[in-house]
Amino acid sequence: MPASYAYLGPEGTFTEVALRTLPEAATRELVPMLSVPAALDAVRGGEAEAAFVPIENSVEGGITTTLDELVAGRPLMIYREVLLDITFALLVRPGTKLSDIKTVTAHPAAQPQVRNWMKAHLPDVTWESSASNADGARLVQEGRYDAAFAGEFAAARYGLEPLVTEIHDAENAQTRFVLVGRPARPAAPTGADKTSVVIWQREDHPGALMELLQQFAIRGVNLMLLQSRPTGKGIGDYCFAIDAEGHISDRRVAEALMGLKRACPEVRYLGSYPRAGVAVEDVRPPRTGTSDGEFVTASDWLARCQDGRF
Amino acid sequence: MPASYAYLGPEGTFTEVALRTLPEAATRELVPMLSVPAALDAVRGGEAEAAFVPIENSVEGGITTTLDELVAGRPLMIYREVLLDITFALLVRPGTKLSDIKTVTAHPAAQPQVRNWMKAHLPDVTWESSASNADGARLVQEGRYDAAFAGEFAAARYGLEPLVTEIHDAENAQTRFVLVGRPARPAAPTGADKTSVVIWQREDHPGALMELLQQFAIRGVNLMLLQSRPTGKGIGDYCFAIDAEGHISDRRVAEALMGLKRACPEVRYLGSYPRAGVAVEDVRPPRTGTSDGEFVTASDWLARCQDGRF
Amino acid sequence: MPASYAYLGPEGTFTEVALRTLPEAATRELVPMLSVPAALDAVRGGEAEAAFVPIENSVEGGITTTLDELVAGRPLMIYREVLLDITFALLVRPGTKLSDIKTVTAHPAAQPQVRNWMKAHLPDVTWESSASNADGARLVQEGRYDAAFAGEFAAARYGLEPLVTEIHDAENAQTRFVLVGRPARPAAPTGADKTSVVIWQREDHPGALMELLQQFAIRGVNLMLLQSRPTGKGIGDYCFAIDAEGHISDRRVAEALMGLKRACPEVRYLGSYPRAGVAVEDVRPPRTGTSDGEFVTASDWLARCQDGRF
Amino acid sequence: MPASYAYLGPEGTFTEVALRTLPEAATRELVPMLSVPAALDAVRGGEAEAAFVPIENSVEGGITTTLDELVAGRPLMIYREVLLDITFALLVRPGTKLSDIKTVTAHPAAQPQVRNWMKAHLPDVTWESSASNADGARLVQEGRYDAAFAGEFAAARYGLEPLVTEIHDAENAQTRFVLVGRPARPAAPTGADKTSVVIWQREDHPGALMELLQQFAIRGVNLMLLQSRPTGKGIGDYCFAIDAEGHISDRRVAEALMGLKRACPEVRYLGSYPRAGVAVEDVRPPRTGTSDGEFVTASDWLARCQDGRF
Repeated sequence: MPASYAYLGPEGTFTEVALRTLPEAATRELVPMLSVPAALDAVRGGEAEAAFVPIENSVEGGITTTLDELVAGRPLMIYREVLLDITFALLVRPGTKLSDIKTVTAHPAAQPQVRNWMKAHLPDVTWESSASNADGARLVQEGRYDAAFAGEFAAARYGLEPLVTEIHDAENAQTRFVLVGRPARPAAPTGADKTSVVIWQREDHPGALMELLQQFAIRGVNLMLLQSRPTGKGIGDYCFAIDAEGHISDRRVAEALMGLKRACPEVRYLGSYPRAGVAVEDVRPPRTGTSDGEFVTASDWLARCQDGRF
Repeated sequence: MPASYAYLGPEGTFTEVALRTLPEAATRELVPMLSVPAALDAVRGGEAEAAFVPIENSVEGGITTTLDELVAGRPLMIYREVLLDITFALLVRPGTKLSDIKTVTAHPAAQPQVRNWMKAHLPDVTWESSASNADGARLVQEGRYDAAFAGEFAAARYGLEPLVTEIHDAENAQTRFVLVGRPARPAAPTGADKTSVVIWQREDHPGALMELLQQFAIRGVNLMLLQSRPTGKGIGDYCFAIDAEGHISDRRVAEALMGLKRACPEVRYLGSYPRAGVAVEDVRPPRTGTSDGEFVTASDWLARCQDGRF
Repeated sequence: MPASYAYLGPEGTFTEVALRTLPEAATRELVPMLSVPAALDAVRGGEAEAAFVPIENSVEGGITTTLDELVAGRPLMIYREVLLDITFALLVRPGTKLSDIKTVTAHPAAQPQVRNWMKAHLPDVTWESSASNADGARLVQEGRYDAAFAGEFAAARYGLEPLVTEIHDAENAQTRFVLVGRPARPAAPTGADKTSVVIWQREDHPGALMELLQQFAIRGVNLMLLQSRPTGKGIGDYCFAIDAEGHISDRRVAEALMGLKRACPEVRYLGSYPRAGVAVEDVRPPRTGTSDGEFVTASDWLARCQDGRF
Repeated sequence: MPASYAYLGPEGTFTEVALRTLPEAATRELVPMLSVPAALDAVRGGEAEAAFVPIENSVEGGITTTLDELVAGRPLMIYREVLLDITFALLVRPGTKLSDIKTVTAHPAAQPQVRNWMKAHLPDVTWESSASNADGARLVQEGRYDAAFAGEFAAARYGLEPLVTEIHDAENAQTRFVLVGRPARPAAPTGADKTSVVIWQREDHPGALMELLQQFAIRGVNLMLLQSRPTGKGIGDYCFAIDAEGHISDRRVAEALMGLKRACPEVRYLGSYPRAGVAVEDVRPPRTGTSDGEFVTASDWLARCQDGRF
């Protein structure tokens, strides 16, 4: 197994910063890739142990490239997630003043986060998209543009200085990243876990999706994400990527997953892993009747009924 | 274990006729008891192996005495059920003509079944209740009344003759009887089985009962009977006796029962036993996703997910 | 309209006592009838303005005779309900001591309420059933039995004295009575109301009953009673008498009733009337999203959407 | 009202072709815009009567820019939808052969649709993204690239010829476009209609989303699209864009919308309009109990109950 993590490059982006928050990243070679599919292909092909890619963004929503890669092709599995606050700095060559700036660049995904700030502070400046925020910084270094929106951490690498920091139109702007690998035994439950799954519907009738969500609801499993993705079979044909609270080793989650497996023509398990940004003590206890202890008690009771000992 | 069956007596009633349809009755001593509680107490006390009592009537509904005895006290279990068509004969002393009849008797439960017939054929006759239909026949034999409504089978025993037969106001009038014993391993599934259970609600909010019924619905288990019975704690406080299609060894039934066990403050299992009056080939196959095979497949899949082999 | 109320007689029973708690009873002639059907027939036939009959008992459950009369035949409507605490007195001829009592009588419905008391205080006494508790008191007066269980209020009428009072095996034993009349505009809502309805199921599939209960649950309407009654078409064919919180003029109740009307082959409205035993201030407020004000707001919003004014 | 339609330009793209299938487009000035937000701003600002933009793609899923514009800001409304089969032609300068091609261009959204075809037929060719498919064709005309993937219809405009046509990796590749305007009275129902709405959840508990979907299910309204979009308040905070079968003037749809309005903190109605690609005779009839006639019958029945005429 190669001790390397592929990640969505280039170097010097938020993805790399997020990846470096993982302790295990310190002991791996970190290999930037040109695209999410390329990073995941490196895992599927065995060149990388795992890949680190963005999956959800509080401004843009689900990262469809990542979701679609997980939904189709050889099975992959989410090992870990990382949440990163996204806040931009305006990077310039040393000495540049705000009034000097005529052109600015960044990756298109940055635009919704800096649009209002630009209207207020750089109303007449021309925006040009770059391939990545890091690439934009490089182009500023080369003198092609006057300024770049990027993470403050990118300044040093490209010999720039942050003229303005903490730029973010929306409060609480965050991106969620996942470390994705080949199928493996899920990490042990921590008490604050999440389970990801993709489901396909069997038929299209009033309440079809509702009946699938009931598999979670009746067992007290809370949903954290429901993201539809086209199956590619035509307009209106969707599968659903779902994040549910809890770990596959929780009895309520396991039973819900089996219920989906029976009710759906296809279910793809994407892993159980620790929730980022939530302490164990802040996790709500399971609803009455859905704890592991209550599952065990009910199972014992059933066995006694089946044995005639009641 | 005493090789005797207690039953709701006296001799010569529909209950005895129904009991004698059970092959195992031929090898037991059949002991008539004065009441349903007496018959069930004989089982609880160990004097009888089982008790045979009516539990449901297509005209009168659930037999509350029987239900209440099953709901409370030392646990009992339903071993078997028997369905009997209920049709009355008008029994008279030999030689009596319809126009001779001035008084008629029977158990009060017979009244709703013969009321219209009486209006049409014996409009001016006086009705008096007797303790049982068999007792009514005896009183006709003794000359106290002119005629009795009873099962045709009772005529010979009391030296009477059936003047009119096949009397029943409602079509399809049937009574369901159950053979009740102490808790034991349920009979093996036949493919046309029924499971009985009593549930208590945890709290009273909109949808509370609905959520319990969902435990069956989501697993494709059909309900055949839902009978509320007071808990004795005050007006409006009820438990529910439920008959569901299927056997406790069916995975969908077992999972539904465990779901109820977790969701309810109390659940009382009353047994799984062959359905009377339904051939195995007339039982609807389980809904897609709820057969034992699909449960096993889903369970295998879950194990593979938990092991990382997917 | 005759200014008379028929009631389940004879005089001197709990029913009469409950009836006299209604202010309007003071201005009507109160006519005891021999049976519940006789009392309701008097209403259907126009001889009585309304009939007062028991409908539910905290020990015995629903009074099936009353339910079956409401479920079938010419439509009737519940105008009012009365809750009465049921507690028995042991009535004897003056001078009789507990040790003198060899025989005791009462209506069979009294038996579950005094059984334990009898075991403790009159273990060797013979019980004989009488046609009503009042009738039992009369038979004690005539010297046929030594004592009768009846309401304490019956003592004076029959020249007896209450030897023991406040006898009731179960705490909170209550009977609920209803005043039933011909269909009329329901009483104005009081804020603590109840709506009664009978529903028939369209088809028998997993979840059929649950789907009907959803009509209430989704609109935040709490159920207070769910009582199955046979339709008379055969074992297992049931309709359901339902009591729901709220008044037909509450928008959430009205919409739920219309939902049932569409979903069921038959629905029988039995009236909306003040809840007995509950003060308006103790009624839970409607769940968020189900108050009349929220219904009106949503209706206005819909009209604006349909008009293109949003 | 300006008689012009803004659309996502430039000229010569699939969007323009789809727009021209609308009869009303023939009588409007069609104004290409640089982006979806620009097109919709033209409507909001009153410069255009309506805007025509893509909203859903069978390969890529919901067009998030369009959805996010509809979800937020001044209310807009969908007037019409158009479905267009998406199939590409490989456009080259006259005389170019397949073996001459070293570089190819198109809008990035074309890539998933031609990727497999390229692997098979142009394995060693370099892909460069262009701002639109039409722009790519222009760049081929100018000699910057050897070939462009675009609609066959774009060939003539740019003096190119289609070397290969009918290129589409996925069968049934379609894009759905919508004509969006300011709020107005919805188009009259046709019998094959669709209603679009955005809902926000009130709270996050097991079953929260399921309860909202029940508002549709219990009234027999089928869902055609459920697309989550971030609210911008943080990771995991989503609203849902929903397409439901039927028209706001259908009683079942209207009642479901009002139910959502009461249950959700916010609901945004996006219009009711004819379904593209479905003939009226292919629309499934409403489920028993959910037709307009049944709603009217139930409403009449309720009025009679409220009046005491039943």
